Amino acid sequence: MKILLDAMGGDDAPRELVAGAVLAAREFGIEVALVGRSAELTAELAKHDTAGLRLPIIEAASVIPMDEHHPSDVWRRMKDSSLVVGLNALRDGQGAALVSAGNTGAVVASALFILKRVPGIERPCLATIFPTRDAQRPVLVADSGATPDAKPQYLLQWGRMGSVYMQNVFGVTAPRVALLSNGEEEGKGNALVQEAFPLLKGAGLHFIGNIEGKDIPGGAADVVITDGFTGNVVIKLAEGLGSMVSATLREELTSSPLNKLLAAALLPALKRFRSRLDYAEYGGVPLFGVQGLVIKAHGRSNARAIRSAIRVANQAAERGTLAAFEQIGAGQADNTQRE
Amino acid sequence: MKILLDAMGGDDAPRELVAGAVLAAREFGIEVALVGRSAELTAELAKHDTAGLRLPIIEAASVIPMDEHHPSDVWRRMKDSSLVVGLNALRDGQGAALVSAGNTGAVVASALFILKRVPGIERPCLATIFPTRDAQRPVLVADSGATPDAKPQYLLQWGRMGSVYMQNVFGVTAPRVALLSNGEEEGKGNALVQEAFPLLKGAGLHFIGNIEGKDIPGGAADVVITDGFTGNVVIKLAEGLGSMVSATLREELTSSPLNKLLAAALLPALKRFRSRLDYAEYGGVPLFGVQGLVIKAHGRSNARAIRSAIRVANQAAERGTLAAFEQIGAGQADNTQRE
Repeated sequence: MKILLDAMGGDDAPRELVAGAVLAAREFGIEVALVGRSAELTAELAKHDTAGLRLPIIEAASVIPMDEHHPSDVWRRMKDSSLVVGLNALRDGQGAALVSAGNTGAVVASALFILKRVPGIERPCLATIFPTRDAQRPVLVADSGATPDAKPQYLLQWGRMGSVYMQNVFGVTAPRVALLSNGEEEGKGNALVQEAFPLLKGAGLHFIGNIEGKDIPGGAADVVITDGFTGNVVIKLAEGLGSMVSATLREELTSSPLNKLLAAALLPALKRFRSRLDYAEYGGVPLFGVQGLVIKAHGRSNARAIRSAIRVANQAAERGTLAAFEQIGAGQADNTQRE
Repeated sequence: MKILLDAMGGDDAPRELVAGAVLAAREFGIEVALVGRSAELTAELAKHDTAGLRLPIIEAASVIPMDEHHPSDVWRRMKDSSLVVGLNALRDGQGAALVSAGNTGAVVASALFILKRVPGIERPCLATIFPTRDAQRPVLVADSGATPDAKPQYLLQWGRMGSVYMQNVFGVTAPRVALLSNGEEEGKGNALVQEAFPLLKGAGLHFIGNIEGKDIPGGAADVVITDGFTGNVVIKLAEGLGSMVSATLREELTSSPLNKLLAAALLPALKRFRSRLDYAEYGGVPLFGVQGLVIKAHGRSNARAIRSAIRVANQAAERGTLAAFEQIGAGQADNTQRE
């Protein structure tokens, strides 16, 4: 199995990207192709012991900026960028999946254009993996930002793909699929949720109905389906609250010399606390609905997060996730024809 | 100033409600009328030293259950309930504001029916006050659940009312008003946000544009405007993450006898940490858009949270908040006529 890595995308690229690739190649025994400027990547690789590891380089001369303001047509303007070269390599079968920590808008738009949609899947979605109270059982939230205005049938398709993904990559049997809503009872929700409810109910999934925002970290479901606007607010709010919790805890625990001393002794426990709330641990956000496995890692990913994203990409590829998505799309197309 | 309190609504009613009323009457020197079953309320009052305090009782024979499943017409079925009797008293001028910790759907539906909408204000909204990194500067999120499907002009009206409320009750000069979106740039957002943006931009408010979910706890704005579906997900998610943070922190800090000992010594700091993340401290959620000041307190409110809600209700009444809302409604009606 060979995984392609956009080695130039991300806040700390290429340093953390290359370091993550080295970790993944060693730990999982897989080939990781680094896409980017050969000179820079060779220099980064030289800092590591790469003996026996398969880490080829695919040359790409430019880099899409993290703050690219017009990501929708960047695939056309920057054909020699690491992202676009990587996506072309994926389309051409040079790798089983692509990992990128670059600009999210650029990844989504370029993947859509270069790989094209899975036939029958109407809109793509980004599926963020989120920690819950039970560290062993994270939850997938889809869409988390690819499609801000959704229709009921999109939610159904995302639910189907999310269910397959949680089975294939996280080993969850019969994943519990839920609609995110403003109340649990059937009939609650905005117009979109009210229309999507019967579709999901009749889909043959393990659909558990509506859940509320508090039930996401509560672990009530394995797959939480929502429009890309609400989903984006959810993941960004969680990020913001995480930062606020850390900052507030730090202030209170360092508010006196004695507290500082006590907190220092508790540092390992506090670090475990932090890491249990950190969704980088879960290895990136798959883009559902395009003809290729694309995993978007957080822009701030460190080597460990990149390693996790590569692991996830490898696992998704090994389990035939893309073929399963294509079957879902084909089923949808059949349904539409029959209607 | 006299504040009406639905003394029977809430998970720990009437105990915590009466205790909160006693605190508020003593601390702020105001009259708090307790609405509910006289016998129970008299018995609760007897547990406190109420000498010199003005705590009259208004009899109401029944109580709307916290898990009422058909709140929309409960005002018709339970006319002798503490909530409905309290709302009628408010409408009849027997108090300047009403505080209830009862079933949210029942409070919103009954207030709408009994008090009627402010002329010109098209839909009501619940405005939740949220802590930010800066403990001195909380943020108002509206709507947090009254109107799941919103139109652009609703967001504008909520923005105007939110701005007035933050001035009147929290003393914020020229409150920064923002639209919640999935990206900061103008043009980001779902269809609703994209249409609401120019309305808010031209409203003469201190409108700072779009903000993302992470900016709510980050304190980027004083008033965050969103539809009631997304807003409800926001407040419930924050609640769920708060519980998850507490549970995870407790697990890690009690994972060994030594950690337990260290954590016990840090208990005051950890309690301050908790309280800074607790939005009960900010005193309840005003319902904007009805002809009366109604403050919804959390169902789980303890005496201290009820006291805060009564303080907020009193302050909103003293500053003429309802008259300001009526002016906003009148301005909207004028605009509509001119168009």
